Amino acid sequence: MTPTVNPDRLWQSILDIAAIGPTPEGGSCRLALTHEDTEARALFLRWCHDLNLHHEQDAIGNMFLRREGSDPTAGAVAFGSHLDTVPTGGRFDGIFGVLTGLEIMCALHDAGHRTRAPLELVNWMNEEGSRFRPAMMGSRVHAGDMALEAALAITDDSGITVAGALKTSGQAGGLTPSPRGWACWLEAHIEQGPVMEATNTDIGIVTGTMHARYFQLVVTGEPSHVGPTTMDRRRDSLAAAAEVILAVERIALAAEPGGRASASWIENYPNARGNVSNVTRLHCDVRHDRAADAIAMEASLRTALDEIAARRQVRIDVDPYATFGPVHFDQNLCNLLRRKAENRQLSTRDMTAAAGHDSVLIAPLCPSAMLFIPSVGGITHNPKEYSTKEQVALGAQVMLDAVLDLAG
Amino acid sequence: MTPTVNPDRLWQSILDIAAIGPTPEGGSCRLALTHEDTEARALFLRWCHDLNLHHEQDAIGNMFLRREGSDPTAGAVAFGSHLDTVPTGGRFDGIFGVLTGLEIMCALHDAGHRTRAPLELVNWMNEEGSRFRPAMMGSRVHAGDMALEAALAITDDSGITVAGALKTSGQAGGLTPSPRGWACWLEAHIEQGPVMEATNTDIGIVTGTMHARYFQLVVTGEPSHVGPTTMDRRRDSLAAAAEVILAVERIALAAEPGGRASASWIENYPNARGNVSNVTRLHCDVRHDRAADAIAMEASLRTALDEIAARRQVRIDVDPYATFGPVHFDQNLCNLLRRKAENRQLSTRDMTAAAGHDSVLIAPLCPSAMLFIPSVGGITHNPKEYSTKEQVALGAQVMLDAVLDLAG
Repeated sequence: MTPTVNPDRLWQSILDIAAIGPTPEGGSCRLALTHEDTEARALFLRWCHDLNLHHEQDAIGNMFLRREGSDPTAGAVAFGSHLDTVPTGGRFDGIFGVLTGLEIMCALHDAGHRTRAPLELVNWMNEEGSRFRPAMMGSRVHAGDMALEAALAITDDSGITVAGALKTSGQAGGLTPSPRGWACWLEAHIEQGPVMEATNTDIGIVTGTMHARYFQLVVTGEPSHVGPTTMDRRRDSLAAAAEVILAVERIALAAEPGGRASASWIENYPNARGNVSNVTRLHCDVRHDRAADAIAMEASLRTALDEIAARRQVRIDVDPYATFGPVHFDQNLCNLLRRKAENRQLSTRDMTAAAGHDSVLIAPLCPSAMLFIPSVGGITHNPKEYSTKEQVALGAQVMLDAVLDLAG
Repeated sequence: MTPTVNPDRLWQSILDIAAIGPTPEGGSCRLALTHEDTEARALFLRWCHDLNLHHEQDAIGNMFLRREGSDPTAGAVAFGSHLDTVPTGGRFDGIFGVLTGLEIMCALHDAGHRTRAPLELVNWMNEEGSRFRPAMMGSRVHAGDMALEAALAITDDSGITVAGALKTSGQAGGLTPSPRGWACWLEAHIEQGPVMEATNTDIGIVTGTMHARYFQLVVTGEPSHVGPTTMDRRRDSLAAAAEVILAVERIALAAEPGGRASASWIENYPNARGNVSNVTRLHCDVRHDRAADAIAMEASLRTALDEIAARRQVRIDVDPYATFGPVHFDQNLCNLLRRKAENRQLSTRDMTAAAGHDSVLIAPLCPSAMLFIPSVGGITHNPKEYSTKEQVALGAQVMLDAVLDLAG
């Protein structure tokens, strides 16, 4: 019996996870290590136990579910993604990749198929970075891109540390985070953009990612009274931050089509109705297909910050706290995914990922690649995020075909 | 013995109150009905008890300290200000007015002087409006400008109601807020601007206030992912809010010298690093010496909001939740204050208050006026806020002279 994915079971598992941390508009909110994330992890783990997968977990909360192969000397074929979401999360971003991995395990179980190489299914901790920055925290620590101690000390906006959240949620495992000698890594994900739908593409072959650069900015002015303080005497950090937000947007528009940039997080002090603001923090990022162009975007941003700071007599401190990419995924794995899709008469398209993914961190450790399925309307990080049941099943089947090829 | 203020005692009382809720830079933070505000009220009350003042308190937390006169039929001469501060508060804004009132009571006590009319010293609840909007809440409710029930239901940014904060702090008194039949009202305050210092003025005679209009704005866009979402597909509420902040500033600059405007409070959702924002709330105000010009500033703001909303495909809801002024203070009282200052060889200057003050609400109830003393450097709502001991004492003495004239 050839292993085949079960579209109904896979779809139902997506709906079951989405029911944890549901939002009124039909999406999900499961910020990393919250009660909701913990509950989704527990349900995922129950499913894995039913398949007799061996569970290991590391000290940063990454979950590894192993299915042994017939060759004890072979490196594992690993795959997975993440179950955490952003506050306005949909039902597919990350979840599709983890549950496709689960469905692969189910299909092999149903078929009584033992692969030569072992398989490992992974749920990475805090891919989104909404609660704890930076994003892809679990895979970062796994890959040695960030020290465990540094990650554990990071706080969310309410001052809770990653270490505290891991303890409260019971998600700190016994393993020291480190590479696990995998033969290769695959991640299935939704596109999160409109290109595949617009071009009638079934399967996106992700050949690499953009280069992104993240910054935290602190604008410091001087507090004063909104009434008697004449406009020329103000050093208003919020007004300066407003100019920065629009400068970020202008830099992105000038860098199209390859470039993007955003300012999406703000914290203002004293944030009082009678007071000109004096400390405003912003988070922003610039990203581009070409690393050199992303670096040029950062240079434009720094020029704009200097000009704004000088003109408004405020100070702007820049903390360039993280980057990702550019990554070029393994050509052989990309070719394999493309061939497996074509074998099933599916259309493919080579793509560059604009978002950060855990695969960016894993790519330096072993041959890695990603597969995309279409996002209806290109909508993502939004309750309306959607891929059809058929799109989900086709993506999972191509992943299964590729895993069977790789693991024997 | 002629009643005379004691500069040392008055100065020390200011320092004593400033030591409650001290901030690292030398200012004070005593948001309305917090633990710090409550402690300052308790210290003030102990001082008043030492002078045998009769204490009454109303259901919105306004404190009335009465000294009886010889004529039981006379309306009281009332005076005071507020002890609450903004988060980046100084030591003088509001506090100077309350403690000048206390010093007047002390001076009369020392001199064994009984006035004909009774005197009432007032500490108004939540003048600043930093924690609970709108500002001048206590005097608003006292004057019937806002219903008690409406005020009690207002919440701070953490969801605590005014009613809850009054209960927790023990500051809800037994009186129903209502006018108390005062003969007149006087408020001493710091200028909070640079004009008196620049013109070597000892005493500012505040003949009236600006007209101010307060708004809460809600910008609604659409959530999406900061990576794959191309710039043209974004409906970014934070970027739209940034344009609003700068539009407010432009409108103020165009309305100078009589106009001011500010956006000083922001709340952003989901305020996440991976997400284009979809709900951003802003507080802003416009104000002008001439009411018609403030109204024109509002019209300009609304035009700008319409243009921004249409171009960016976001919705902007406007809640014009409060106004104050313009107020023209009582001419006879202004003349009295001017005369009392001149009698002491002090220079005076007629001024318009740009900030909101409790006197704005009291002016419709009885003849009212305000006196200003200089602010060093014009700095206010800032730990560096300062008036000299001599400036403080001179202002208090002119107030005492006027009160003696009015109360007999």
